[in-house]
Amino acid sequence: MSEVTGEMRALAERLADAAGDVLRRYFRTPVAVEAKGDATPVTAADREAEAVMRRMIAETFPDHGIFGEEHGVERGGAEWVWVLDPIDGTKAFITGKPSFGCLIGLMHRGRPVLGIIDQPITRERWLGAPGGPATLNGAAIGVRACDRLDRAYLYATTPEMFTGARAAAWQRLYGAVRQPRYGADCYAYGLLALGLVDLVVECDLKPYDWCALVPVIEAAGGRITDWEGQPLTLDSEGCVAAAGDGRVHAAALAVLRGTKG
Amino acid sequence: MSEVTGEMRALAERLADAAGDVLRRYFRTPVAVEAKGDATPVTAADREAEAVMRRMIAETFPDHGIFGEEHGVERGGAEWVWVLDPIDGTKAFITGKPSFGCLIGLMHRGRPVLGIIDQPITRERWLGAPGGPATLNGAAIGVRACDRLDRAYLYATTPEMFTGARAAAWQRLYGAVRQPRYGADCYAYGLLALGLVDLVVECDLKPYDWCALVPVIEAAGGRITDWEGQPLTLDSEGCVAAAGDGRVHAAALAVLRGTKG
Repeated sequence: MSEVTGEMRALAERLADAAGDVLRRYFRTPVAVEAKGDATPVTAADREAEAVMRRMIAETFPDHGIFGEEHGVERGGAEWVWVLDPIDGTKAFITGKPSFGCLIGLMHRGRPVLGIIDQPITRERWLGAPGGPATLNGAAIGVRACDRLDRAYLYATTPEMFTGARAAAWQRLYGAVRQPRYGADCYAYGLLALGLVDLVVECDLKPYDWCALVPVIEAAGGRITDWEGQPLTLDSEGCVAAAGDGRVHAAALAVLRGTKG
Repeated sequence: MSEVTGEMRALAERLADAAGDVLRRYFRTPVAVEAKGDATPVTAADREAEAVMRRMIAETFPDHGIFGEEHGVERGGAEWVWVLDPIDGTKAFITGKPSFGCLIGLMHRGRPVLGIIDQPITRERWLGAPGGPATLNGAAIGVRACDRLDRAYLYATTPEMFTGARAAAWQRLYGAVRQPRYGADCYAYGLLALGLVDLVVECDLKPYDWCALVPVIEAAGGRITDWEGQPLTLDSEGCVAAAGDGRVHAAALAVLRGTKG
């Protein structure tokens, strides 16, 4: 079996429903915030939402692997691996700002084939899967054309993502677009898939941060790669460039490389 | 007459309803974006929402003044002046991100006495007025305690707000708090009034950007002043420091002044 089945799609939607129930329950309530080893915050909401999803996956597809932000990897060598970030944007979540999302990705032999970006407060769910356009709450969506960087609307979550030479590259890109903006977490990729944003360029992402995004962006007609233009894999360094239009994607990579801009 | 009347409060709510209808109609549709003289974007949605509000004010209180972002000042010397920003966060609006808000303030002899922050997509409405706590959709809300900067969650809209010496001051503050973050427009002040954020520090604000915020923050139990700790007036230079707790407000001002940090 090498195709995404209806049962897998149905499970992905049920995972988002279940995680959303947990996140809505904790949203804007006092939750203890702990710093993880990497100094990123985590809450009981993150842990509980992921635990609920892991149980559902294990019950439905006991041979599938799971790679989650909070509870690690199980059966990482399996043909199918679910890649989960219960709250992408924990810093937004803990300040009550609904730009965070629950990210649910499914990899087949290391390639992301199904993705959900779920915003449980505004009740927006983006889905990308083989054989159809990306959808927002079931309605088909798609990227927009943008032929030049100086017409492009760009998002990244925070300047802290970019360090060293990447900070300089980011500043070049920041200065080359029509409108750069911080602060949208995974929501920015949803806006790109809707044709409202042209570029999202970030660094310091883990596989559970980008795995769910790839099928959504690709099914919406966009491009998403690393900063060298290569497909994102588990070995990627965590720098991502997503664009609605291949021309602006190529132009952004050139500016990031310093060969133009 | 020198007190905010029930009729004024009712009008403020009806203005937010009417502007919200306009903004929901334009949200995530292709709207032409023009650059104003100051290079900030404006759309037909901004103009139409403000025009609707101005008509309603003129019908209800023909002797009141109006100061709006898009259509200027009328009767600016009146005892009561309505201060309107139909879309605070136009850059968020045009990229489909619901962190923008419609700001409706009422000044009495130059002092902000009534304020509404309305987010028409998530349907969240903050209101601050004399004689009661601030509310979100009618429910009482309030700030939280925060005694130290290194425990404070800080927001600003974008680093581009801070230039020259203020950029250096902002960087000192950015490094002194627990969690700095960009990208929430007026929504950040709503989160502060909800006790989910401790500080919002910004520059480059016009009176229509801050007038509606003052009554909301104060009715929620917080402090909002300029960077010198003075009340915001029409002569202010546009730098704002809002805090839920007076201790963290004082500490932030000290860091901004460079006398501590």
